[in-house]
Amino acid sequence: MTVTGPGGGVLRVALAQLTVRVGDFDGTTEAVRAAMTWAGSVQADVLLTPEMTVSGYPAEDLLADPGFRAAAGQSVQSLAGAAGATVALVGAPLPTGSLPAAGGTAAIAPEGTALDTLGRPLRNVAAVLHRGRFVAAHAKTLLPTYSVFDDSRHFGPGSRRQQLFQVETSTGPVTFAVLICEDIWHPRLAVEAAAAGAQLILVLNASPYHVGKPALREQVVTEAAVRAGVPIAFVNSVGGQDDVVFDGGSFVVGADGALLARAAAFRAGQLVVDVPVASGPPVALTTGPNQLGPDGVGPDGVVALGATHRYRDPVPAPGIAAALPPPEEVYTALVTGVRDYCTRIGLSRILIAVSCGIDSALAATIAVDAVGADQVWAVGMPGPYSSAGALTDARALAAALGIRFDVVPIADPYAERADVLARLLADRGEAVADVAWENLQARLRGVTVMTLANATGALVMSTGNRSESAVGYFTLYGDSCGTAPNPLGDLLKSDQVLGDGTVLPGVYGLARWRNEQAVAAGRPAPIPEATLTKPPSAELAEGQEDTDALPPYPVLDRLLIAFLEERRSADELVLRLIGDGYAPDEAATVVGRVCGLVDRAEFKRRQVPLRIKVSRLAFGRDRRLPLATAFGHRPSARPGPAADDPGASGGEAGSGSGLPRTIVRLTPWRD
Amino acid sequence: MTVTGPGGGVLRVALAQLTVRVGDFDGTTEAVRAAMTWAGSVQADVLLTPEMTVSGYPAEDLLADPGFRAAAGQSVQSLAGAAGATVALVGAPLPTGSLPAAGGTAAIAPEGTALDTLGRPLRNVAAVLHRGRFVAAHAKTLLPTYSVFDDSRHFGPGSRRQQLFQVETSTGPVTFAVLICEDIWHPRLAVEAAAAGAQLILVLNASPYHVGKPALREQVVTEAAVRAGVPIAFVNSVGGQDDVVFDGGSFVVGADGALLARAAAFRAGQLVVDVPVASGPPVALTTGPNQLGPDGVGPDGVVALGATHRYRDPVPAPGIAAALPPPEEVYTALVTGVRDYCTRIGLSRILIAVSCGIDSALAATIAVDAVGADQVWAVGMPGPYSSAGALTDARALAAALGIRFDVVPIADPYAERADVLARLLADRGEAVADVAWENLQARLRGVTVMTLANATGALVMSTGNRSESAVGYFTLYGDSCGTAPNPLGDLLKSDQVLGDGTVLPGVYGLARWRNEQAVAAGRPAPIPEATLTKPPSAELAEGQEDTDALPPYPVLDRLLIAFLEERRSADELVLRLIGDGYAPDEAATVVGRVCGLVDRAEFKRRQVPLRIKVSRLAFGRDRRLPLATAFGHRPSARPGPAADDPGASGGEAGSGSGLPRTIVRLTPWRD
Repeated sequence: MTVTGPGGGVLRVALAQLTVRVGDFDGTTEAVRAAMTWAGSVQADVLLTPEMTVSGYPAEDLLADPGFRAAAGQSVQSLAGAAGATVALVGAPLPTGSLPAAGGTAAIAPEGTALDTLGRPLRNVAAVLHRGRFVAAHAKTLLPTYSVFDDSRHFGPGSRRQQLFQVETSTGPVTFAVLICEDIWHPRLAVEAAAAGAQLILVLNASPYHVGKPALREQVVTEAAVRAGVPIAFVNSVGGQDDVVFDGGSFVVGADGALLARAAAFRAGQLVVDVPVASGPPVALTTGPNQLGPDGVGPDGVVALGATHRYRDPVPAPGIAAALPPPEEVYTALVTGVRDYCTRIGLSRILIAVSCGIDSALAATIAVDAVGADQVWAVGMPGPYSSAGALTDARALAAALGIRFDVVPIADPYAERADVLARLLADRGEAVADVAWENLQARLRGVTVMTLANATGALVMSTGNRSESAVGYFTLYGDSCGTAPNPLGDLLKSDQVLGDGTVLPGVYGLARWRNEQAVAAGRPAPIPEATLTKPPSAELAEGQEDTDALPPYPVLDRLLIAFLEERRSADELVLRLIGDGYAPDEAATVVGRVCGLVDRAEFKRRQVPLRIKVSRLAFGRDRRLPLATAFGHRPSARPGPAADDPGASGGEAGSGSGLPRTIVRLTPWRD
Repeated sequence: MTVTGPGGGVLRVALAQLTVRVGDFDGTTEAVRAAMTWAGSVQADVLLTPEMTVSGYPAEDLLADPGFRAAAGQSVQSLAGAAGATVALVGAPLPTGSLPAAGGTAAIAPEGTALDTLGRPLRNVAAVLHRGRFVAAHAKTLLPTYSVFDDSRHFGPGSRRQQLFQVETSTGPVTFAVLICEDIWHPRLAVEAAAAGAQLILVLNASPYHVGKPALREQVVTEAAVRAGVPIAFVNSVGGQDDVVFDGGSFVVGADGALLARAAAFRAGQLVVDVPVASGPPVALTTGPNQLGPDGVGPDGVVALGATHRYRDPVPAPGIAAALPPPEEVYTALVTGVRDYCTRIGLSRILIAVSCGIDSALAATIAVDAVGADQVWAVGMPGPYSSAGALTDARALAAALGIRFDVVPIADPYAERADVLARLLADRGEAVADVAWENLQARLRGVTVMTLANATGALVMSTGNRSESAVGYFTLYGDSCGTAPNPLGDLLKSDQVLGDGTVLPGVYGLARWRNEQAVAAGRPAPIPEATLTKPPSAELAEGQEDTDALPPYPVLDRLLIAFLEERRSADELVLRLIGDGYAPDEAATVVGRVCGLVDRAEFKRRQVPLRIKVSRLAFGRDRRLPLATAFGHRPSARPGPAADDPGASGGEAGSGSGLPRTIVRLTPWRD
């Protein structure tokens, strides 16, 4: 064991912002190998890849598949053989105890060598590869199980939070710590690592997008760097995997919190940065085997990795890619999610039922931007209550986007089924809920697009938005039919501003933004003006408008954010509406109806297509609720604006906020 | 602090096998109060209730709702006030640090008082209530995140695995430990508790059913009792909550492993048992506050709870309810799951599309047994390829079950849509996959039953089995439409015997068993003989049989168990088929097709109704897979029956097993 106190210097860090399809071991290994070659060519001391690079993330229960786990191990072995003078940190799921003795040859331990208390055989690790060998590993210590995450389902936690590594660089020895994703969100881990001797911290991530997340992430990591007093390099994965999108935006911050470099969002890319480090305290170098123990504990002391490259010239100062404004950030996330899903499953033709309401119009533009106009097929399916302008608008949209458009009316099968079933129900003396006839129209449209899609090998894209999904304002097996991700499923109808000032663009905001982009580029605005301005309607009954059954969307969406994301009680929501100028009775009626609809619609949300997560709390695996629960959200008998109620107004604008109001009619419901 | 070494004696344990609807705080509090009254009336020393009794389990993300958490705390407070001389152990989700000092008044700590590393504010605890006070608590230490479990999503782990409590009984002091569910599946926790001084162990559970689970559970607990050398009392919840069914079957085993008592399966019930305990070692009694610390650590020493009842007469020897044979066990689980779902959501009318294949026939009998014949409505929907006998059989089934039966043909809308869409596709020059016309029939049936259900407020029960679900042999938005749980969704078509000898009844086995039960009771067998004997067919094309596209079900199901539950590789499956007498090429073709279908059908399984879990590994939250993955299961080029391959035959019967064989035709696929 030697003791050395590194002076100040530079660590040249290469960040590979890779796009990884879960389970694409061959493709990913090749991409990492290319990144290693590049990192060597720029004489980087360390190459940083995203969390779980070799397998993709989240691999979910594929991690329980012995063949999948074996393939991950083989990828690491193969990449170790390709490692040169640059130390490569490669994210991988590996069995505990998978490391060779220092100086030995690379070897993955057999399954079951070491298990944690709950019998989980894997760790989420950064494999340290250097000069042809798999020399060490560091395991993620904090395993998130909130939001979309299920890390504890598969991994046992690593126990040594402050595991350190040292390389001999051109500027002398540099000691660094490795953290993995969740670990950096708890700043004391960075502080501990710096206190133990780390001169900088390298972080592997697969950090999914939600609105404002890029800025939040940089803020959290910058605070950690300042508190720990060391620079932090943060590499993120990029691309859409099912319902989540990794937004890239890898970056490096200095010990003073200054942003030194940032890669582009939503695109694969790479950065190489000469990161200046201050001198570090003396550390004890380990001479024993670099083995992760049975409890996920790494070796005592600092793992000495040896020399990297000898270089003289600094790399050019890296760029700082611009942060995206909210509409572009969200829109790009949606396009990325749709495009990567289609690419990854190998089908790229998308069929959309275009009504031409605002939702289907926006979905069509997203589809075109994701897979190209020649791969998008719009179908208009007028029914007995469709408005006269709908087909005209739909044709205008299709022409502006350059997509194919067909018309298949549903009037005949609707008349036939409605007649047969109404007679049967009448013969049987059944009281009939009229909503059944509304749903019937939506379902015949679903049957029609699914048949066209099955006949031609196309995907169907559903276009229901998050507001409708929340209150169940859609027809199960009707407009919710879809085998592509629904790009609007996590997008409120209206634009909202959150309490922290975050702008949350909705369907309208993105539609307007997309039109503006087209105009700015000298092209016609794709979404017709009438679509943007007409009152929202499902057009399933004579003169129907969404506000017959729902509050105006700005009001509904404000309630939904408070209810779903801020977990406000029904009484708190009533007080907010009263603060906005609603009469107490009316406020209680609206809140009771909205909360009741959200609670009761859970069974419908279980059977809808993937949504692309862009909100802080999306429906789906981000929000897991039982169906047959007795717990509902209802206002108390008559909540008043009691001055001592902590929920009263909640620090928000009081009366006269100018929000539109409605008297809610308790119409029958669609399911 | 006093030190006392209890002699041998008796602890009178009352076990309340309760049925708990998630979030039914009022109803559940009342039921626990009644159980406390009963336990007091039989002079029990301790009353044992299931895990998470006050809230129900699994409450999932309702646990993130402040109102839900507050209600759980209020329930515990209310029940504490009702506690008498019997110590009540009540399962509850509570914030850490929620306990009063010993001797103080009951109080739930405010939110956020103490958090674990990942910021989870709750523990899964047994609240200890005695003589009007909430005096102590013990937190679950092992939090399962496999199978259907997500405990780590909401709870931080308790850290004091061997927390002990002591009561003064009529026979002197008795020291006991409390474990919660997962804790008892790791026998060293029981051994540790006994070593620390526990004379017996009390276990609170919400342990979901799968086939063979009751016997497995008793085996594991009996082994723990014998290893620890102390008796164990195990109380389980009962009833269906969404996709899982708690099967009750609470029991007590002695220190020698003898079964002392067992409650009935699948029914609420109670047991009171005088459990003999051997003398224990001296233990230190705690005098400090009985507070769960920030890391979930309880107090040092044994919590002295004081005197319970003074009684002289032993309770009568409790009964040992008989274990159920496999078909009855599985059938009862399915009936319980359907019945409780309907009861808990408050809708009890069930509409079933009856083809009269074996699946819809069995589903109809389950529906009748769950909600009663007067609440079940069967609809036959003959199409162009329906067999002549189908309506006759369906009428016979309905008559035998005493349920309403209506006929609504789909021929007209099928002809109309097929014509319109075929012309459009032809006009557009599209090549058409014929499977679209098969799916169209199934979807028009889906539209029809959903319209009838929406009109009348009925639930639709889908009837696809697990074999079909596995290979995607169903039509999304067609036969998979359903708003009730699908009772067949976790049931293979054929009966199978697992490697450990467990009998896994399939659709056929349960259908025959149900017929036999009827005949034994002097009633007509409900399921027609023709339904039991005719070759399975979707009847969506001329002369179609399931074996046109799939191996015979006994072969398919054997492969599915090996693939899904035993996680065998494709090559191992090929070797099994070769062992069964298949030619190598044929075996590779069959396995390649089956595995490929299972892999590709994941997107369809995401959008189907709840299934009642009865298998060891059900589709749904028990098996969470990404959709856009590149990882597929395919046989290698040409696996041979190499003698040294560990997968070869796998200890099973070799060639000539008599299983039916098929040549798989690669027909187009339904989706």
